[in-house]
Amino acid sequence: MPELRKDPILGRWVIIAKERAARPTDFRSGTVHPSGGFCPFCAGNEDKTPPEIMAYRKDGSAANGPGWRVRIVPNKFPALRVEGGLDKSGMGMYDTMNGVGAHEVIIECPDHHLSPVALTDENVEEVIWVYRERLTDLKKDSRLAYGLVFKNVGAIAGASLEHTHSQLIATPVVPNLVQREMRGARDYFAFRGRCLFCDMVQQELMTESRITHETEEFLSFCPFAGRFPFETWILPRKHASHFEALSRAQAKDLAVHLKNMLRKLETALEDPPYNFIIHTTPWNEPEIEEYHWHIEIIPRLTKVAGFEWGTGFYINPIPPETAAEFMRQVDS
Amino acid sequence: MPELRKDPILGRWVIIAKERAARPTDFRSGTVHPSGGFCPFCAGNEDKTPPEIMAYRKDGSAANGPGWRVRIVPNKFPALRVEGGLDKSGMGMYDTMNGVGAHEVIIECPDHHLSPVALTDENVEEVIWVYRERLTDLKKDSRLAYGLVFKNVGAIAGASLEHTHSQLIATPVVPNLVQREMRGARDYFAFRGRCLFCDMVQQELMTESRITHETEEFLSFCPFAGRFPFETWILPRKHASHFEALSRAQAKDLAVHLKNMLRKLETALEDPPYNFIIHTTPWNEPEIEEYHWHIEIIPRLTKVAGFEWGTGFYINPIPPETAAEFMRQVDS
Repeated sequence: MPELRKDPILGRWVIIAKERAARPTDFRSGTVHPSGGFCPFCAGNEDKTPPEIMAYRKDGSAANGPGWRVRIVPNKFPALRVEGGLDKSGMGMYDTMNGVGAHEVIIECPDHHLSPVALTDENVEEVIWVYRERLTDLKKDSRLAYGLVFKNVGAIAGASLEHTHSQLIATPVVPNLVQREMRGARDYFAFRGRCLFCDMVQQELMTESRITHETEEFLSFCPFAGRFPFETWILPRKHASHFEALSRAQAKDLAVHLKNMLRKLETALEDPPYNFIIHTTPWNEPEIEEYHWHIEIIPRLTKVAGFEWGTGFYINPIPPETAAEFMRQVDS
Repeated sequence: MPELRKDPILGRWVIIAKERAARPTDFRSGTVHPSGGFCPFCAGNEDKTPPEIMAYRKDGSAANGPGWRVRIVPNKFPALRVEGGLDKSGMGMYDTMNGVGAHEVIIECPDHHLSPVALTDENVEEVIWVYRERLTDLKKDSRLAYGLVFKNVGAIAGASLEHTHSQLIATPVVPNLVQREMRGARDYFAFRGRCLFCDMVQQELMTESRITHETEEFLSFCPFAGRFPFETWILPRKHASHFEALSRAQAKDLAVHLKNMLRKLETALEDPPYNFIIHTTPWNEPEIEEYHWHIEIIPRLTKVAGFEWGTGFYINPIPPETAAEFMRQVDS
């Protein structure tokens, strides 16, 4: 069972995932992530993953065989495990608990495509819809507090397999960063009486120079204080605190929007490594006015070095206005 | 002039360093950090850096020529600049100010060594002493709030030159992360009436299993909730809030301690990329009981991916106790 440990200074949680690496020497430089030719995510290799949690599949096709369009399986090397209780305890001055949670992999398509850009609009729509289904289901487990959907593309961004896939990790505590975002958004709401993110949508529409893409339901822009070159956020135009309240019509619009936005990034930066993260409201909160779910896409082109680790400051060598102008000029 | 922009959600500052990259296309994959054979930090090439701020040099040797042992120069591509006022202003709903600050490079030795481990004890002692001198000097500038000393080793950890060097960045605001550390340490002090870090020293000495190295004045250990495999912290045994209050005797002890600790890391992990960061109290604070300066060394062996960026959680596949045991067994 993985162990959760809390840093006593910042309240930051760390997962000590003992089962992931066998020996300290596995971390000697150059020995991580060997690549092979075989793909366990391709149709026909269903027995090479743990049994599926669910799938969208052709009527009549059997679980754990071909015939699926989108398939969800438990992560083979999970950071957190679904079994057992939290068993919070102290170790001297430190706090610890069991690594209870969920760690699922969303295999986005049966063929060996490397990017959602290569998929049909309908396929991407089903991927987005399955995020919603899994979050809605996991939310019912009272031991869990937050669900994070994310995607790592490229080895530098932390991907170990290239077949396009996303991940969902549900945690037993509201993560530190999410708590800080909630606090910041609530402070703004207390001061202005308006949602910070709704104000950002208005501000970006008025300023125009940071906008990268627009559809009926969503707005993409390079955020004013973006940490990374070409960092891009996608916000629903209408206020909504929880991603899982998404309507099917919004999922359809988001599929097209996301594909276009990723195509622009891939074209402009020639297939960059990137992370894609859905930020949403914790599960113990009802629909609220203060927080607004959104997607953050961070291309991983610059290195995070000592200055960033020591301060939480970031150095972005491309003004967001310049990055946005560049992306607007790319065909999507 | 670089521009500082504040993220309205987290209060996180970003430096938009327009002068660092010329065109968006510079960030296309694979075009960053070309390496060359020439080293501007080696003795004899003093005219290839900006003029020196100070140096420890042979009596009678002229500035910006050979004869130095440790040499401090302004960064050629500074993240922040010393000239001008802050000029805080609003841009719609967002906050911005001028990128005023200092960005200095500490060239640790005249010969082309790649690591402090290769230097004499006296050389490393002078490097530590010059950190103290530069921090003490910059602290007098009332526009500046915090000074960070750090070191990036290896391309993955953000280094662009291999000749062993450290950097000092002084910022006009207390960085977000430092504010959060101060808050956490103050909360602990309010609750317990003792310094959190002094308690950690006691706890680690009692537990023993996470200790990696001990000298008269300093203790090294793998922190209980370490984020990265083989993460190591060095704490002064006696309480001290500000690094720049270091005595010469402590600098001497730290030089030997640090060299031994880095040698253990280099041997155990075969020259890993790493960052080394001095955490200290902001300049507007007097000597205080609540915060305790220390060094954090983070080997960069794992990738920071979507989960970490979305939660602030970290996944560490090596228990700190296992890493510490491994390092204790390495000769230093």
